[in-house]
Amino acid sequence: MTNDPKNLVIIGGVAAGMKAAAKARRESPSLKITVITDDQFISYAGCGMPYYIGDVIKDSKKLILREPSYFKDMHNIDVLTRHRATAIDTRSKQVKVRELEKNRDLTFPYDKLIIATGAQPIVPPLPGVSLGNIFTLRTVKDALKIKACVDGGKVRNAVIVGGGLIGMEMVENLMLRGIRVTVVELLDQILSPLDRDMALLVQNHMVQKGVEIITSDGVKSFEGNGSGVVTTVITGKRQLQTDMVILSIGIKPNTKLAQEAGIEIGATRAIKVNERMETNIPDVYAVGDCAENIHLVTKKPAWIALGSTAAKMGRVAAVNATGGFDTFPGVVSALIVKVFELHVGKAGLSEREAVKEGFQVEATIYPAGDKAHYYPGTKEIIIKLIADRATKKLLGAEIVGEGTVDKRIDVIATALTFGATVDQVSKLDLAYAPPYAMAMDAIIVAANILGNKLSGRTVGILPHEVAERLERGEVLVLLDVRTESEYQNGHIKGCKHIPLDKLTARIQELDRSKEIVAYCRSGLRAAQAYRILRNAGFPNIKYMDGSILAWVYGLEK
Amino acid sequence: MTNDPKNLVIIGGVAAGMKAAAKARRESPSLKITVITDDQFISYAGCGMPYYIGDVIKDSKKLILREPSYFKDMHNIDVLTRHRATAIDTRSKQVKVRELEKNRDLTFPYDKLIIATGAQPIVPPLPGVSLGNIFTLRTVKDALKIKACVDGGKVRNAVIVGGGLIGMEMVENLMLRGIRVTVVELLDQILSPLDRDMALLVQNHMVQKGVEIITSDGVKSFEGNGSGVVTTVITGKRQLQTDMVILSIGIKPNTKLAQEAGIEIGATRAIKVNERMETNIPDVYAVGDCAENIHLVTKKPAWIALGSTAAKMGRVAAVNATGGFDTFPGVVSALIVKVFELHVGKAGLSEREAVKEGFQVEATIYPAGDKAHYYPGTKEIIIKLIADRATKKLLGAEIVGEGTVDKRIDVIATALTFGATVDQVSKLDLAYAPPYAMAMDAIIVAANILGNKLSGRTVGILPHEVAERLERGEVLVLLDVRTESEYQNGHIKGCKHIPLDKLTARIQELDRSKEIVAYCRSGLRAAQAYRILRNAGFPNIKYMDGSILAWVYGLEK
Repeated sequence: MTNDPKNLVIIGGVAAGMKAAAKARRESPSLKITVITDDQFISYAGCGMPYYIGDVIKDSKKLILREPSYFKDMHNIDVLTRHRATAIDTRSKQVKVRELEKNRDLTFPYDKLIIATGAQPIVPPLPGVSLGNIFTLRTVKDALKIKACVDGGKVRNAVIVGGGLIGMEMVENLMLRGIRVTVVELLDQILSPLDRDMALLVQNHMVQKGVEIITSDGVKSFEGNGSGVVTTVITGKRQLQTDMVILSIGIKPNTKLAQEAGIEIGATRAIKVNERMETNIPDVYAVGDCAENIHLVTKKPAWIALGSTAAKMGRVAAVNATGGFDTFPGVVSALIVKVFELHVGKAGLSEREAVKEGFQVEATIYPAGDKAHYYPGTKEIIIKLIADRATKKLLGAEIVGEGTVDKRIDVIATALTFGATVDQVSKLDLAYAPPYAMAMDAIIVAANILGNKLSGRTVGILPHEVAERLERGEVLVLLDVRTESEYQNGHIKGCKHIPLDKLTARIQELDRSKEIVAYCRSGLRAAQAYRILRNAGFPNIKYMDGSILAWVYGLEK
Repeated sequence: MTNDPKNLVIIGGVAAGMKAAAKARRESPSLKITVITDDQFISYAGCGMPYYIGDVIKDSKKLILREPSYFKDMHNIDVLTRHRATAIDTRSKQVKVRELEKNRDLTFPYDKLIIATGAQPIVPPLPGVSLGNIFTLRTVKDALKIKACVDGGKVRNAVIVGGGLIGMEMVENLMLRGIRVTVVELLDQILSPLDRDMALLVQNHMVQKGVEIITSDGVKSFEGNGSGVVTTVITGKRQLQTDMVILSIGIKPNTKLAQEAGIEIGATRAIKVNERMETNIPDVYAVGDCAENIHLVTKKPAWIALGSTAAKMGRVAAVNATGGFDTFPGVVSALIVKVFELHVGKAGLSEREAVKEGFQVEATIYPAGDKAHYYPGTKEIIIKLIADRATKKLLGAEIVGEGTVDKRIDVIATALTFGATVDQVSKLDLAYAPPYAMAMDAIIVAANILGNKLSGRTVGILPHEVAERLERGEVLVLLDVRTESEYQNGHIKGCKHIPLDKLTARIQELDRSKEIVAYCRSGLRAAQAYRILRNAGFPNIKYMDGSILAWVYGLEK
């Protein structure tokens, strides 16, 4: 029976569940396939919902990819909506189900079971959290409620609690609807998958767009008016008047059903699965946001809930559950998000994550054009690359900018999948023509710069390291080698200014016994100054990676 | 001396040569570095020249990246323009040089020599080829001449001889200047690195834009007016009136100097080098368009002259020539070109090239959206993936469309570099958000479809195979499963039309003994029809990959 299952039950009807159902049907024309979900909507595009609320996507129907009738008519798949799986008996191989509309209990036997119960938003148990106009955004129902609230025309101010990806997409989309938005984040930065230096680039852009961003401050409670609608967000440090709140502090995997059935939960608190999406219980698979993955950089379990991964996991489980063989080796945690004019992407580990994992980290920041510099419409991107000093392997990348980011993130994600060294990245044969890239693409140049640091050819220092050392009161000579007018326009407090073309002539103004950090606009002239001083015998000279373009800690005039 | 060279001579001052010079200086502050070039311009962006002629790039100075004085002042590199290297004596380690302005001979000794002599356009020895207004486009001087000719305002018609990448860029840029353009190509397709099926997609787009494209016809001679200016292009089949001709039939590596010095030339007719860019002669390196590479898919020598590769080779030679160690393993032949609204890209081998290399080829064509289908501005791309049946490795990809192509080509190029299987490509963790991709990115879906063909799960047939078999008079039942209105709008001649939703009811209309090929718009419904008929026991059923969107052989109404 294992090789010829008659009866496949799938719990969950969004990305992973429906992908598994469709793939299982293609693998096996005769299998009975039943999808059980307590939602009334299935197969919807959760990632599109912020854009629906922002009226970028006009029609909610566009978010519903398929109806249950489609699956019945086209694929002979039974999709039971408003049916809640309440228990799994893995010995008798049955799922107990509550039919919500009729309020009765049903039992579904299975030969193979795929759990795709997804995840749910974390709702903090704060006073007032149940007030009206406090929303989470996860399901179609959530999106319809928020949209209706905004469409009502009475929302002037909104507070987003949490600075994650969905929250940042909501900021832009609410502002498109004419709403003033304040973000409250407990950490000292938004977009916590990114390093703080890169996140601050995004944060500064958002502030320029008129968003109020409050970091290092947590929500304590909510207060409402006589009608029970939220009016005030009380944080540790302030009170914010508001007409609407989006809680976006994170999600947690829905594992209760699995856990109660004796299915093993991993260290990440999601369901533990192997490469074939098998749980510890025979004939039971788990896929999508409720299940773990392997992080291909750390080789450790990771819980990274994304629609793209869910679909792939669903497919793999379906092949295995129908007697075939397929594996999903893991993820590199690639992400991309649009924040106003900025594209923000990451793949692999951030510098902070890499340090935490115990790697000996070397990193660089490189600001570059996304196309040939002479081609019209070329825009800037700022690339941070992170590598392991021991193996010289690339560990991750973060890229932020108005230029093309997603392309470079996908290249990095692919390189990380194959365990590429920094040197291998620098030798990639990427396609070149002026409308698309520089002759040496930005990530190739960034890899070359990082390679120079790894081999000891150059000694750079990241802006955040400079800022932290100045913060600690350490003595550093900051050498600004830009032109007079660039310097006048804003420079780092306390710097020494010698334009690059005067550096050789004025070299005696510098104290050889001091630690000197050269900076310019993007790092290019700083590296030249570095070489001039090194060749002149200065023993303790560094250049600042990314320089002013990556300096997010304020300038003085 | 080998480990501590005093004197580096570089012959050639464009991409590879100047990159080598700059990198050598960074590696070695004290080395004497001399660049010798017969051109008056150095360090220019050859790939930008079509856009300069098209007035997309307004200022010719933008194409000149650096002047000789910059290299002298900033890097202490002597750049000798209008100096022609006439001989290399590899025993005495000297280069003989003709100083063109002063008409005198000089001798430059070297410890290390880097040859970066580039390539030159092939000019066919046809009658009339020296007439006025017949141009090649390779150097800045060429670009200035063509620009001046167009700026003169008397060019109404132009003929591009040769359908290569630069030629296609010139078509668009000349049309931007209001010129009617005719392309004459000897082969049966333009863009010969692509398979004909993909090239025809581009060709059809160009014809829609008003370009006249003549294939399978060669130029025999040129005729001019009394002033010696071209007026007529005589081909094998026609006479074309014209005011201007661009010869763009290809380039050949400049290897005469190297060859005369006893430096080994490879099977590709470019200079043979190893991974360190060393020639067969000690202390002599060759880089850029005059040198060979290894093709990482075939593992064989290949000559693929591109600015992106030239820069990388120059860097590697500089490291090795200054006593360091660096390698350039090879290329995957990635290319990208903009042709009006289409982006056209390729990496690895085409189907035709793969067959020629002896691979057992499996391929698919998949038309897809470049972003989430519900996100505004999503555009179409058509992906062709080519794989090896024996190893199930990806061999190459071609992508054409108005949507984002360069990103997917670079991902494929990276995957090819690491020898990825089709299965590995289908599991890549590419970054997903609605403004950038579908949840399962187009290349992941394409890899899944190709994986299904490789594993025998499905049997597809490419449009060109159908066309070729019909051409040969073979009997195939072409089953159009689109809607009535789609069918009425244009279908393949002689097809049988049964809409997909009627297929089960009308299945008895089909002859089980015949070979049936189902097609629809994009291949999706064709694959469903394939499964319905297969499950009904039809023994010889296929679906057409890419279907009508990839059918470039004409429709009837």
